[in-house]
Amino acid sequence: MQSRAALHTLPFSLNSYQPGAGSGAMLDLEDVLAARDRVAETSRHTPLDHSHTFSAMTGADVHLKLETFQRTGAFKIRGATNRIATLSPEQREHGVVTASAGNHAQGVALAATRAGVDSVVVMPEHAPVSKVKATRHYGATVVLHGEDYSEAQARAKDIEREENRTYVHAFDDWAVMAGQGTIGFEILEDCPEVETVVVPIGGGGLIAGVATAIKGRHPDARVIGVQAEGASSAAASLAKGEIEVLEGVDTIADGIATRRVGEKTFEVIQERVDEVVTVSDSEIAVALVYALERGKTLLEGAAAVSLAAVLEEAFDYEDDEVIVPLLSGGNIDMNTLTTVIMRGLVETGRYLKIRTVLQDVPGALVHLAEEIAAAEANIYAVHHDRTSRDVAMNDAEIEIELETRGQDHVDALLSRLREAGYDVDVLL
Amino acid sequence: MQSRAALHTLPFSLNSYQPGAGSGAMLDLEDVLAARDRVAETSRHTPLDHSHTFSAMTGADVHLKLETFQRTGAFKIRGATNRIATLSPEQREHGVVTASAGNHAQGVALAATRAGVDSVVVMPEHAPVSKVKATRHYGATVVLHGEDYSEAQARAKDIEREENRTYVHAFDDWAVMAGQGTIGFEILEDCPEVETVVVPIGGGGLIAGVATAIKGRHPDARVIGVQAEGASSAAASLAKGEIEVLEGVDTIADGIATRRVGEKTFEVIQERVDEVVTVSDSEIAVALVYALERGKTLLEGAAAVSLAAVLEEAFDYEDDEVIVPLLSGGNIDMNTLTTVIMRGLVETGRYLKIRTVLQDVPGALVHLAEEIAAAEANIYAVHHDRTSRDVAMNDAEIEIELETRGQDHVDALLSRLREAGYDVDVLL
Repeated sequence: MQSRAALHTLPFSLNSYQPGAGSGAMLDLEDVLAARDRVAETSRHTPLDHSHTFSAMTGADVHLKLETFQRTGAFKIRGATNRIATLSPEQREHGVVTASAGNHAQGVALAATRAGVDSVVVMPEHAPVSKVKATRHYGATVVLHGEDYSEAQARAKDIEREENRTYVHAFDDWAVMAGQGTIGFEILEDCPEVETVVVPIGGGGLIAGVATAIKGRHPDARVIGVQAEGASSAAASLAKGEIEVLEGVDTIADGIATRRVGEKTFEVIQERVDEVVTVSDSEIAVALVYALERGKTLLEGAAAVSLAAVLEEAFDYEDDEVIVPLLSGGNIDMNTLTTVIMRGLVETGRYLKIRTVLQDVPGALVHLAEEIAAAEANIYAVHHDRTSRDVAMNDAEIEIELETRGQDHVDALLSRLREAGYDVDVLL
Repeated sequence: MQSRAALHTLPFSLNSYQPGAGSGAMLDLEDVLAARDRVAETSRHTPLDHSHTFSAMTGADVHLKLETFQRTGAFKIRGATNRIATLSPEQREHGVVTASAGNHAQGVALAATRAGVDSVVVMPEHAPVSKVKATRHYGATVVLHGEDYSEAQARAKDIEREENRTYVHAFDDWAVMAGQGTIGFEILEDCPEVETVVVPIGGGGLIAGVATAIKGRHPDARVIGVQAEGASSAAASLAKGEIEVLEGVDTIADGIATRRVGEKTFEVIQERVDEVVTVSDSEIAVALVYALERGKTLLEGAAAVSLAAVLEEAFDYEDDEVIVPLLSGGNIDMNTLTTVIMRGLVETGRYLKIRTVLQDVPGALVHLAEEIAAAEANIYAVHHDRTSRDVAMNDAEIEIELETRGQDHVDALLSRLREAGYDVDVLL
């Protein structure tokens, strides 16, 4: 299969990485090994599930690493656990602080509570209610501060100084990366024949840890990183050879919507990640819908990128290649979910919303409905509005929501209606 | 804990049921045992997953039987496989036929294809596109006929006669029940300490098989049946002592929206099911949302009833009682899902849609937004309409969608707005 969007392929040399050498200057296999027992204190060994559906769809041998079933619903608890386990007695005494509106908040809260360490999490004032509630539930003191993440982070840094707490970084920290890397060992244990592991990249902590574990144990396996097109700092940084800070980010995958990778994570990514590719928001939405509909599994956008990269062949792979997309978490707001589902259905030609104008005469709606039925589309909903100011006095604007069978079916339906004289706008 | 809605408790006598006696007149343990190897040819041993979340929410020790991960997305393939495996060579030659708009269609299609038997499935003309497609994909010839299930079934009966095919009933058939019952053995194998198994009832095939397996092996374990309030024929029939045929059905759990239980299934249910309870559509929607949001697992409405019965304490249970809700399938239309999610959020006070009227003066919207912010609710969307004919010429109607923290929060917000002089209608 041909790669569609290999943005960056590293001239990867294994010589530069000596597994277990323990240089100390950088993350090594020993660090991830040392994290394993600590992480097991708070975290589950999550299932690896062979996917008949996605194997059939891609021709590869696809096994899903379901980190969605991790405690707190995402991998972040692993890194937080390892970071907190390696605090000095004095640091433990003073507690920890972090800023996050997402999974890291819950990971730090639960890891700290389990270790008997006090935690403060600063979240932006308009953070989703469900995330605030969950973070409090896991035992953290939540401080709501600022309009966005930067303002929350500034407040957390103040608290770090004022209260002499240890700041737990979400990714750019060796102990955090080592904790996330324990997922790599689980993949190797459950699927020793793995050929390619596909990992989402936001700040890079997850892939840095996983790549260290995988390459350290199984140097021939590939590690592919995936970013959202609208937040592809790692891809840009690799191309440039130095860290690129994005002006802004724009993606539905909010868990990986970071403006830059970390200093430390970038170092590891440069050395140990084979290739970093990107996927679009549409591709993410489609993957999320497939995971739900076919796999019966809820993913957050950040987790869906790795599945999207496989489904869209964003990197090269062979038939029957053993591929493990790491599905990093399932914490998605239910309102966001309904929006993403609609987008996924629209993208795959299975939902269509059109607007047209009916002459306001008896039978006009019947005629339109007959055309739609003849085209074998199911009508979900009809919004009929005679008061719209955009149409002539005696005409009526109508919006129709339809179930369709795919893009070809959509095209056929639209042609048919237009041939029948309807002026049709596609709204969704 | 007190039961809220124990509609029917049987004076259950184990003496009437001799496990393995093999009377032949009725389903017995031997039948289910015999089904086991046949069913394994097409079906997965699905996971049983301890749920930390639902245990914490209920005080019981809840393990979820994730039949959602079954091939075809639901349990029906088990019964169909056993039915087809027990055809005579001549019957195999002529093929099978059934009518279904749901999981049974896919179960029969795949089971037949795997066994090398030809299958015809009649579906109503307006069956969801996704189900038609899936059934064809699994190898059946799909005939679209009739406005509803009854008309499709009549056509299937014609085909049975015309083509000398064997009709595979969705539930009222001993071999089908025996196949579904294999789930009971898997539960006992993975959780020998199980005290209560909670099973959805539509036609009754699933619970008849499961109860036979569970009671045959572990007579002290309870088997609780759950129906949707709007389709509670089994509950009504048990109360009456004979089969009650409902005038109509009305529930979001379309997979169990049957007007009557079967003759054969009712016989087994009367003898081996301890209690049958009902849950409302609201309770089903809430359970479905919790399964998704907290459990990261997609359920169809019919599967969510068993979780709903546990969450709502529709039957009595003790603290730490080992309870297994059988989550029978995950095949839910994505459009239906978005509707059910919204309903679940509304029911739990986490989504609110209100309408009010603003005087059309500068600053009116600012004032309203300030009140909402002071009440700590997040605004999702605002629809502002000056042209509505229901309000005075210079006023403007406004609809607001809000994220709230629960029913208390909703009440507080509404009180605040009304005290501030707004006339508020709750739309959702």
